Amino acid sequence: MIVVQKYGGSSVSTTEKIRNVAKRIAESARNAQMAVVVSAMGDTTDELIAMARELTVLPDGRELDKLLATGEQASSAILALALHAQGVNAVSLTGGQAGIITEKVPSKARILKVDPKRLKEELNSGKVAVVAGFQGITDNASWADITTLGRGGSDTTAVALAAALKADRCEIYTDVDGVFTTDPRVEPAAQKLDTISYEEMLEMAGQGARVMHSRAVELGELYEVEILVANSANNTQGTLIKKEDQSMEVRNPVRGIAHDDDVARLTVLSVPDKPGIAYQLFNPLADSNVNVDVIVQNVSQDGLTDVSFTVSNAELEKAKSVLAPVMKEIGAKELVTDENMAKVSIIGSGIRSHPGYASQMFGALSSEGINIIGITTSEIRITCLINKENVKPAVRALHKAFKLEKA
Amino acid sequence: MIVVQKYGGSSVSTTEKIRNVAKRIAESARNAQMAVVVSAMGDTTDELIAMARELTVLPDGRELDKLLATGEQASSAILALALHAQGVNAVSLTGGQAGIITEKVPSKARILKVDPKRLKEELNSGKVAVVAGFQGITDNASWADITTLGRGGSDTTAVALAAALKADRCEIYTDVDGVFTTDPRVEPAAQKLDTISYEEMLEMAGQGARVMHSRAVELGELYEVEILVANSANNTQGTLIKKEDQSMEVRNPVRGIAHDDDVARLTVLSVPDKPGIAYQLFNPLADSNVNVDVIVQNVSQDGLTDVSFTVSNAELEKAKSVLAPVMKEIGAKELVTDENMAKVSIIGSGIRSHPGYASQMFGALSSEGINIIGITTSEIRITCLINKENVKPAVRALHKAFKLEKA
Repeated sequence: MIVVQKYGGSSVSTTEKIRNVAKRIAESARNAQMAVVVSAMGDTTDELIAMARELTVLPDGRELDKLLATGEQASSAILALALHAQGVNAVSLTGGQAGIITEKVPSKARILKVDPKRLKEELNSGKVAVVAGFQGITDNASWADITTLGRGGSDTTAVALAAALKADRCEIYTDVDGVFTTDPRVEPAAQKLDTISYEEMLEMAGQGARVMHSRAVELGELYEVEILVANSANNTQGTLIKKEDQSMEVRNPVRGIAHDDDVARLTVLSVPDKPGIAYQLFNPLADSNVNVDVIVQNVSQDGLTDVSFTVSNAELEKAKSVLAPVMKEIGAKELVTDENMAKVSIIGSGIRSHPGYASQMFGALSSEGINIIGITTSEIRITCLINKENVKPAVRALHKAFKLEKA
Repeated sequence: MIVVQKYGGSSVSTTEKIRNVAKRIAESARNAQMAVVVSAMGDTTDELIAMARELTVLPDGRELDKLLATGEQASSAILALALHAQGVNAVSLTGGQAGIITEKVPSKARILKVDPKRLKEELNSGKVAVVAGFQGITDNASWADITTLGRGGSDTTAVALAAALKADRCEIYTDVDGVFTTDPRVEPAAQKLDTISYEEMLEMAGQGARVMHSRAVELGELYEVEILVANSANNTQGTLIKKEDQSMEVRNPVRGIAHDDDVARLTVLSVPDKPGIAYQLFNPLADSNVNVDVIVQNVSQDGLTDVSFTVSNAELEKAKSVLAPVMKEIGAKELVTDENMAKVSIIGSGIRSHPGYASQMFGALSSEGINIIGITTSEIRITCLINKENVKPAVRALHKAFKLEKA
């Protein structure tokens, strides 16, 4: 059996925690060939970025990647040493040594291929391979550049290695017990899900659930790697992210409630309502990599209309500066913004085949007196835009309405 | 013109100091293609070793190398960023990226070859290359192992790159002004030398002068790389280590006084004086990598003799445990040790051709009432073993006797 495990930065933030992780790995390594992906210790990455910023306002991406990659290179060697202390034959590998070949794009390189020649050799010689997460190399030569994979990078490393090794299991260890029906800090009755489909997990991640980055889930879906998300601090069962199966659909068509209160709304007032307006507004935003979500266009009156849409708060300023010149071009009157917005979503693969969930959702919100400002849907998700102050009651009302406390 | 510069860990221990180093490099880079070798920041290496030792008593060499190499990888990227802030086009390279190919021997790998393909490309494209010192890679493939070069490793990296690039200058920047006639903390009248020959520098380093590790000097001698040792904190001229030339010999045959008070003496009492005794004593020590220095054998009396020799204090316990079984074998009576020994040396290439220096040295020590316990010589050095308490007066007396305050 081949197992890939991944431990995040908070699981290896001290030598004490590293020792505990080593014990867990030693246990698993009795019955399997193992590759372990590890993040940088605790706040190492943030500290390195701060040091770089002390020297230059906008650090060059290539140099920053080379600097940040030392964090995982160090933690992988440290974890290998901790495994030796447990009597486990272990060897650490950089991303490059493990064969992670990426684009030549600093800070957010995508993996082009995995060449697990050395990794397989190490596993076949009976060693646990501890691989530095979050990083790769642009070619299989020693003089090639070191890159980092960007957000969700270590999870992505783990899933990519699981795919390349045709691993039997891919286990992502983090500081929560798994994927929940909703955020337990908002709704204490939230239940841990034993399984969730790739699609549902992608919608949950896309709508604010922070357990796993969607990029790694997408890769898992593409290569059919089942991903277990579990807690590195205990032995609870975790959540298995896998292909949807019949039994999952039958159980409960709504699997979870996601929420995201990092939402800003922009409203373009009194735009002449003629063809091409939407393109003129949204094309420059897309070119500037601003993600636009819930779009609402009012019914036209006297040839004028209002268009509103949401972005993340972090992208609000960028969106405003991109739109400033466009406003004149399209003859709009004014751009107003509101940072106190939020989204709540119901997610479940059953939504696609069962009508009636939308009205059940709207009803639940309405009975709490919560005003719905906008709506978007996907095949397996319905999202309502609401005021930020209503997030908690909305999540609780929906959790109850869809009987998720009994999930 | 091609210049290689090296900055030690104390020169880059803070972002402030790194900024200063970047300014110096920016200045030099106006008129030359530059490769800059950098050590890990301040105490980074010691901190990483301490962390490894927290997890396992005897850390595996390969993993420790991989861990320690992150120190120089980080400082090279940081220095490249600091150079960008000075408007200098710079790129950092790991030892592997710079083409330093080494033996597969952890912790003290010797350089097998330098393959400066990428390094030359970067220099030819107008960039300053900042190379991580102290490290190499075992092959030119991305999956090869990372090694460290051991003591004096960053100096050795600099000299090796200077040789491979056929550099016009190799400049080692450190926290002292250069090579002095003797330790200025012992003799304030000590003078900085403008030049010194490879041979003299090797004897100085071998006899306790800490300015530069002999390994890098040997490499410089072999590839005829002239090495400038200078202070990174000021603009004094430094000392140029180069091939001996006639003018150097004429000036002053004794160039410097070295001292080493980290010396222990072992005396084997009442050994039967028969052929092969020396071999039986010293061969096991050599096999255990214990460096034996000043050896004195007393005139035999009643078929018995005493043999004494010195080792560094750090190797005393090892030497004792190696000799314990040998004592019985050779029928010796007792092994006594004395940790309070020291060596003073006069060094100068003129010593080889001018007799009379030995008696001048013995006279100077004798007139201070200093007892000489043993003597060793090389072609260009005379060393006297004395009691540790006499080191300072001995150094001062010799410095004066050979008129080095006028060097």
